[in-house]
Amino acid sequence: MQQPAHGGNLAWAAALAGCPRDAILDFSASISPLGPPDSAIAAIQSQISSLRHYPEPEYSELRLALSHFHQLPPEWILPGNGSAELLTLVGRELAALSATILLTPAFGDYYRTLTAYNAKVLEFPIDLAVNSHLLINNDTSLSVGSQHLELWGQSTNDKGLLLNNPHNPTGKLFSRQEILPLLKEFALVVVDEAFMDFVPPEAEQSLIPVVQEYENLVVLRSLTKFYSLPGLRLGYAIAHPDRLSLWQSWRDPWPVNNLAAAAAIAVISDRNFQQQTWQWLPPTRNQLFQGLAAIPGLQPHTSAANFLLVASQQSSSQLQQQLLQQHQILIRDCLSFKELGDRFFRVAVRSVSDNQRLLTALQTLL
Amino acid sequence: MQQPAHGGNLAWAAALAGCPRDAILDFSASISPLGPPDSAIAAIQSQISSLRHYPEPEYSELRLALSHFHQLPPEWILPGNGSAELLTLVGRELAALSATILLTPAFGDYYRTLTAYNAKVLEFPIDLAVNSHLLINNDTSLSVGSQHLELWGQSTNDKGLLLNNPHNPTGKLFSRQEILPLLKEFALVVVDEAFMDFVPPEAEQSLIPVVQEYENLVVLRSLTKFYSLPGLRLGYAIAHPDRLSLWQSWRDPWPVNNLAAAAAIAVISDRNFQQQTWQWLPPTRNQLFQGLAAIPGLQPHTSAANFLLVASQQSSSQLQQQLLQQHQILIRDCLSFKELGDRFFRVAVRSVSDNQRLLTALQTLL
Repeated sequence: MQQPAHGGNLAWAAALAGCPRDAILDFSASISPLGPPDSAIAAIQSQISSLRHYPEPEYSELRLALSHFHQLPPEWILPGNGSAELLTLVGRELAALSATILLTPAFGDYYRTLTAYNAKVLEFPIDLAVNSHLLINNDTSLSVGSQHLELWGQSTNDKGLLLNNPHNPTGKLFSRQEILPLLKEFALVVVDEAFMDFVPPEAEQSLIPVVQEYENLVVLRSLTKFYSLPGLRLGYAIAHPDRLSLWQSWRDPWPVNNLAAAAAIAVISDRNFQQQTWQWLPPTRNQLFQGLAAIPGLQPHTSAANFLLVASQQSSSQLQQQLLQQHQILIRDCLSFKELGDRFFRVAVRSVSDNQRLLTALQTLL
Repeated sequence: MQQPAHGGNLAWAAALAGCPRDAILDFSASISPLGPPDSAIAAIQSQISSLRHYPEPEYSELRLALSHFHQLPPEWILPGNGSAELLTLVGRELAALSATILLTPAFGDYYRTLTAYNAKVLEFPIDLAVNSHLLINNDTSLSVGSQHLELWGQSTNDKGLLLNNPHNPTGKLFSRQEILPLLKEFALVVVDEAFMDFVPPEAEQSLIPVVQEYENLVVLRSLTKFYSLPGLRLGYAIAHPDRLSLWQSWRDPWPVNNLAAAAAIAVISDRNFQQQTWQWLPPTRNQLFQGLAAIPGLQPHTSAANFLLVASQQSSSQLQQQLLQQHQILIRDCLSFKELGDRFFRVAVRSVSDNQRLLTALQTLL
């Protein structure tokens, strides 16, 4: 069995650990440990009898619910079979431009979708330093911390920019004010906000509130990470209606299954679950951060998301293997992020007791 | 609300009929009335807790189950988010050829996928006569009944052919022997067998048994019609492993949700449900055929599938509207099949009592 390029491949992990899948404590997939919410399960149960009908092709109820949630007209919202499906449509759009700039290290699926349509990729490494900012400097260069991309001399208005915010795998949160100037520079800016809902409302930096002001902005959202439903497949894109109509013509008429549509409608109005997540994450993440920082040879990075990137003096793939074989714990190595290689790993923030199990296991190994 | 171009749009029908969706008796979507099988529901229920995990990216268990079912190596099988998703990948492949021949009237989604990739379409009308055959005549022309397409003089080895078998909307079943010679003529032959499982084993004409002999053959199958699960989204493609690997690189890594994968594994080994369907369909379809033929102005076509195409002396869209408003019955007009227009409609074969309700309603109107 091939080593997975993405977190959450439990079949591979269970084979290596020599235990059933259910026995693996999975820190590799950045999924909330609090869900799925009861509201999602109830909605799924209640809709099983609807499986004998095709999905309604406009997904009117789902779009209306998302429209209320985001205070946007429904035609600005396109549901998809996970945000990964929408990313494929993004790739086709970006491939029509002269090049697409990726902030690296970048989520592996970005390369997949850009390669699928033969898009030209320009890589721009971000500075991993804690206080680095994304900046346009007098319209002549783009910087993230100490890294600079010279824009002057080469046009950016025929290029695309694809970034995620919070950034995966670093957990860095770019401010809305940092990103807004880029919208004037690039032909198309795609902001993957798959982890933005983990940022409490008073701190979040989503571009959704300004999407109607920029025809060249696409925001991608996922419902599978915050609500712990990656097996159900549900995400959505927010962008100009003309762009979304074009995308709709590029894909099949019923991409979202009835149970995913029903669960989505239920969870986005589940304020209790949302509050509970925002109360759980910051202190639990902080405790895990402190615990990791106290282990010799490990240095976690500050994160706004539900995961931590950790620099390791020891080989992370070796560590991954030891954790699996001796503790049935799965962490995410960073080999698929070629800029990071074997000296970084990523862990999801889980419950206090699960996090403690990880810390104890790491202490015995390091 | 726009009139649907596909069957099964109950929101539209309910609005026109002035009743709740559940009250509509739906003859427009060609879905079996016997399902979903209990085995599917049990599998779905048992897997709800798995939604917190990503699908296993290789879909190994599902491919293995389909592999046993079709007696093929698993790498020849690619599951998809309904066969409609796979049809989109087919479109991209066909667009690379100089043209694609469609047997018309053709399923509307074929035009959608070919248009999405700017493929050139050549339309070839099939003869609706009962005993017409698909024939290659001495390598110089293709005929279906009295219709001929001259192949001689223009090369076909740079062209594709996309057909369904049994054919939708006519219900015509082409024999394996009729299709095999075409594989020597065309660069790529795609046979959509979405309704083949309705044909009892002793009569079925699937090309799956010969797929390993032809690198230029793609067979598409759906599990949503026979097992009444269109809201769950599940289909699969059978073709050469190299082609399927290419398709996999064109799409997102987790197209099939966990519940669809579990249901598929359950239903393909549900021999009882399959037997029950094969026992129900032929006599029930025959009874509906006789009933329709006995109504003045209606002429049903012989069908191997779970639907009947009916020629009507009266406007079928008018008939559709009257049936909805006066009887809460939804039939499929054929306006989206431009060769058929307003003098044809299509009905699914349902239970004996539902079919009788349709016949009685038609008798009062005609």
